[in-house]
Amino acid sequence: MSEVIYGIHAIGEALKRGGRRFDYVAVSRDRTDNRVQSILDDCRGQGINVRFVPREDIDRATRTNTHQGIMAVASRKEYSGIEDVLQEKKGKFNFLLVLDGVEDPHNLGALIRSADGAGVDGVVIPERRAAGITGTVVKASAGASENVSIARVVNIARTLDELKEQNVWVVGLDERGEKSYDEVDYNMNCAVVLGAEGKGLHDLVRRKCDMLVSIPMMGAVESLNVSVAGGIVLYEVQRQRRQAQKAAPQKATQKASPKAAKKRREE
Amino acid sequence: MSEVIYGIHAIGEALKRGGRRFDYVAVSRDRTDNRVQSILDDCRGQGINVRFVPREDIDRATRTNTHQGIMAVASRKEYSGIEDVLQEKKGKFNFLLVLDGVEDPHNLGALIRSADGAGVDGVVIPERRAAGITGTVVKASAGASENVSIARVVNIARTLDELKEQNVWVVGLDERGEKSYDEVDYNMNCAVVLGAEGKGLHDLVRRKCDMLVSIPMMGAVESLNVSVAGGIVLYEVQRQRRQAQKAAPQKATQKASPKAAKKRREE
Repeated sequence: MSEVIYGIHAIGEALKRGGRRFDYVAVSRDRTDNRVQSILDDCRGQGINVRFVPREDIDRATRTNTHQGIMAVASRKEYSGIEDVLQEKKGKFNFLLVLDGVEDPHNLGALIRSADGAGVDGVVIPERRAAGITGTVVKASAGASENVSIARVVNIARTLDELKEQNVWVVGLDERGEKSYDEVDYNMNCAVVLGAEGKGLHDLVRRKCDMLVSIPMMGAVESLNVSVAGGIVLYEVQRQRRQAQKAAPQKATQKASPKAAKKRREE
Repeated sequence: MSEVIYGIHAIGEALKRGGRRFDYVAVSRDRTDNRVQSILDDCRGQGINVRFVPREDIDRATRTNTHQGIMAVASRKEYSGIEDVLQEKKGKFNFLLVLDGVEDPHNLGALIRSADGAGVDGVVIPERRAAGITGTVVKASAGASENVSIARVVNIARTLDELKEQNVWVVGLDERGEKSYDEVDYNMNCAVVLGAEGKGLHDLVRRKCDMLVSIPMMGAVESLNVSVAGGIVLYEVQRQRRQAQKAAPQKATQKASPKAAKKRREE
């Protein structure tokens, strides 16, 4: 089945990553700049049909005006299995983001974008009562959804059990968490679990977590926007792992990440 | 002049902080839960007129359906001067967030919410070509805009000069920044400067910065959502200051760097 995706970054990434089969790309007749040109070049290279249409046609097909004058009809994103995600281990340790029912597609998109930037192996979302990877999500992720592996599972609590069996530590973000998020050592296989906007983790999911952490709130409000909170915890994991790598870069037995390799080349 | 604000947290905070004069509060007739009740109690205590109206009236007045059944007509938020913000120093060092032209009210709201959570002294926004503190921003900030001091200035570059004269270090977040955001020691008076969505800092503003930092991007996308990026840097400042405080709670004279603090704990 096909779906409509839109936005410069979204379509650019989808073309680059090759995870979708394209029916066609439609470009608003009033767009002639360089950013669109590079997409047209990619389409030509891949033999993808391009149509030039009135902007209104894109407004109608995407049901938004934030499409930046470009849309595509393409096959849906293929989801990964949990095992695939675990095998994609990019650094020394597994690193997953598990979303327990994020409902707003903009938040879901921003979280996938942050997950991509922080360097996760993959993102886990539930099949029901949560946003799926729609065109809005792809756009809000700036195309990151095309690069990051996403597993869609029936039951988040059961998935956490599976992760624990695979020696992945499960860290839940919860207002009741007694530890601050930066007091955990993330140099271990870990999955960060976030709950829905304004609701937090479901009881059962919270009980499955190996530890609960919270973000210190020093002002009047009680919590952060879920996509901001997620970005803060994901980047704390990345920060700690970068630090650990810097502290022990020369040990030959340690598997060097591409970043470390790059750093050495530059030295 | 009055304006319309809406949302449970937004109005709850506005009532608590007392920064606005209320004409009246309007509640949708279909809302009778506890969260509204506590607001009604505050209104009674402060002698503020409450009207019970059809939900459609609130839809119309707020031009959205995200109002959670409650709105108020109140005086506009009063802005602070830069001097006032500096005098509000909450910790050992000044901590400001400067926004060089954030345009989307949801991003502005989320940034103010994160700034409040991270414990800033205040937020600086430009008068022109940027979102102001509208009802949408108050709602997106979950009411944090009512608690945080906000200075609205004519010229961001000139304000940075003023801050530098007051011994505040100016740290700009910019893709071209060679240092990672976590490689700066934030145990100093500092202002974090963020640019507009997708555009980054204006040239003149960038040149005024004492240092430029970037957020390491390990995946396909080149940048994070501006409100997520801001949250990550603000919380790195907070994290380092908490660490420094933990490491040397008694020594008032000695400035502990976060590095030294970490080392001591590990010994």
